[in-house]
Amino acid sequence: MKRILAVAWALVAALAFTGCATNTNTTPAVENGPLIIARQGSFFVGGRDVKSDNLSLLPAYAPGGTISVEQMYVHYQVPVQASRPPVVFIHGCCLTGKTWETTPDGRMGWDEFFVRRGFPTYVIDQASRGRSAADPSGIVAVKGGRAAPDTLPQVFGAAQEGAWAIFRFGPKFPEVFPGMQFPLDAQAEFWKQMVPDWLNALPTPNPTVPALSQLAQKLGGAVLVSHSQSGIYPFQTAALSRAGIAGIVAVEPGACPAADTDMTPYAGLPILVLWGDYVPLSPRWAPRLKTCADFVAAANRAGARAEMVMLADVGLPGASHMLMQDRHSLKIGAWLADWIDAHVAR
Amino acid sequence: MKRILAVAWALVAALAFTGCATNTNTTPAVENGPLIIARQGSFFVGGRDVKSDNLSLLPAYAPGGTISVEQMYVHYQVPVQASRPPVVFIHGCCLTGKTWETTPDGRMGWDEFFVRRGFPTYVIDQASRGRSAADPSGIVAVKGGRAAPDTLPQVFGAAQEGAWAIFRFGPKFPEVFPGMQFPLDAQAEFWKQMVPDWLNALPTPNPTVPALSQLAQKLGGAVLVSHSQSGIYPFQTAALSRAGIAGIVAVEPGACPAADTDMTPYAGLPILVLWGDYVPLSPRWAPRLKTCADFVAAANRAGARAEMVMLADVGLPGASHMLMQDRHSLKIGAWLADWIDAHVAR
Repeated sequence: MKRILAVAWALVAALAFTGCATNTNTTPAVENGPLIIARQGSFFVGGRDVKSDNLSLLPAYAPGGTISVEQMYVHYQVPVQASRPPVVFIHGCCLTGKTWETTPDGRMGWDEFFVRRGFPTYVIDQASRGRSAADPSGIVAVKGGRAAPDTLPQVFGAAQEGAWAIFRFGPKFPEVFPGMQFPLDAQAEFWKQMVPDWLNALPTPNPTVPALSQLAQKLGGAVLVSHSQSGIYPFQTAALSRAGIAGIVAVEPGACPAADTDMTPYAGLPILVLWGDYVPLSPRWAPRLKTCADFVAAANRAGARAEMVMLADVGLPGASHMLMQDRHSLKIGAWLADWIDAHVAR
Repeated sequence: MKRILAVAWALVAALAFTGCATNTNTTPAVENGPLIIARQGSFFVGGRDVKSDNLSLLPAYAPGGTISVEQMYVHYQVPVQASRPPVVFIHGCCLTGKTWETTPDGRMGWDEFFVRRGFPTYVIDQASRGRSAADPSGIVAVKGGRAAPDTLPQVFGAAQEGAWAIFRFGPKFPEVFPGMQFPLDAQAEFWKQMVPDWLNALPTPNPTVPALSQLAQKLGGAVLVSHSQSGIYPFQTAALSRAGIAGIVAVEPGACPAADTDMTPYAGLPILVLWGDYVPLSPRWAPRLKTCADFVAAANRAGARAEMVMLADVGLPGASHMLMQDRHSLKIGAWLADWIDAHVAR
């Protein structure tokens, strides 16, 4: 009986899904029924071989040889009803692709929500982070006495106390902004998402950028959705080549391109710079708001179709910097899905 | 029309799935139709807070504070027809959970195959690997001149040339065993799966072991499937507590418990030690075959239901050490799914 009910659910979901393919309301069938996937999997983009004599100090593993570094891990899901353009989710500082998965309090992440809305989703781990390999040779060389300590890679961890204000849970640890929607009850689970950040140990541009360009070209028309530290990457990717880029969504970007730089890469491109709440109250974030506003204006003068939106202005107040995990994350996701529908050509 | 066809496919798949729930044949509908998921997502198990003054040398991030380490990342998918016990996939040396996903030559991984066979699957990243955070403080302390180079974490990378023989693609790089089934044409994609290994920088037992115990108890009856370096973990987990462990499958374990140790943790437990081909030809692997055979005999004398199987003896020759990615990986997966059906109580 349980099995029959489960199949009935799948059928109902499949039918509801058809009916909802052009309907942007969030119906329970789309968000709560079984998830029907046409294809899923993972692969790498980019990467290069490096030869080193400093790979291991252990007898069981040879000290020298070849490793592959700078590749970008990509996990994807394509819904049966892929009626929308593919979306590439790019995490920020000290985090991995986990950012977009199940929220710390156990609710559906944007990775699944957008699939349910008909978008193929591609979740990446930045080069040297998560399932994208870092290069250990700089550590092995120093431990083995073959290089000076100051040659060690510039790795860092973001302390929870300091990250509190960066993620705008409140003005400073452990104060909380009134009405702030991040699920702080589940903060222990959130802190576990944080990993050491190798950003400053990598070449410029970050190898994630050419890898994103390769991925966009493979997908043939993707929306690049960045967050925080990765905010500049989609713009750098477009400057490298517009091929395969259908739109850019910068969720709380750590940086926008300077307004006096070349804006021709953005001509005709739909661009959204999206902000949560309390931004003007943050000494770290307020100046970025200004730079991004200047960028949006300059890009539009060059023919872009750029806009900047504060979520509080569209009826979604209380958003933290981790807005894809806030209590109202699916409402924000639904708003964003509608924005993409309205602005990005299928 | 395309949409109608897609939905028709989903319905056919759902119906075929029902029909196949107790049928172990690999039908096209199960392996190639849409994938129907009841629940998917990710979470962490374990972890502990560490305070350090050596988290960062960068002005933008505080040098001191709290980070969470030793947690284990888990990604899961539960099929609509979860007619079988949950399976936990535990990767080996220098790899991540990517091991079990799409093969280097782009075919379905065991993570999806077992879901299609009715098993909820849980794919983990070992502590300090992939999306499970490592602790950067030992690197920051040395780079900052506050600790000696020999205190650096014992991190290593496995060179491709040396890994060649470990993965038994051939006796030594670049020789190939006759009939060996790993898709070497796609080896560049495989080498990108390899990440720095922090195993030797971690406390004993590896924090992955208590985390596996927590996960098994949460799942209430899981089959722990290890590979290579992680081979000993499920046995160590059972020694910690039998709660939640329904069976152990050690795929080419780097070690089995010594035959003269306490065997009571394994009484009544279904255990499979599974080997690919060419093992007796490998100086690294042949001794492990012997140790595991001794373990299986000792465990059975203590009431376990253990067996050791060479895939070549069950009609599946040519398997490398990375047998979940070999050209005949789904045939091996089907054989393993049948073994679980026959030996592990639902």
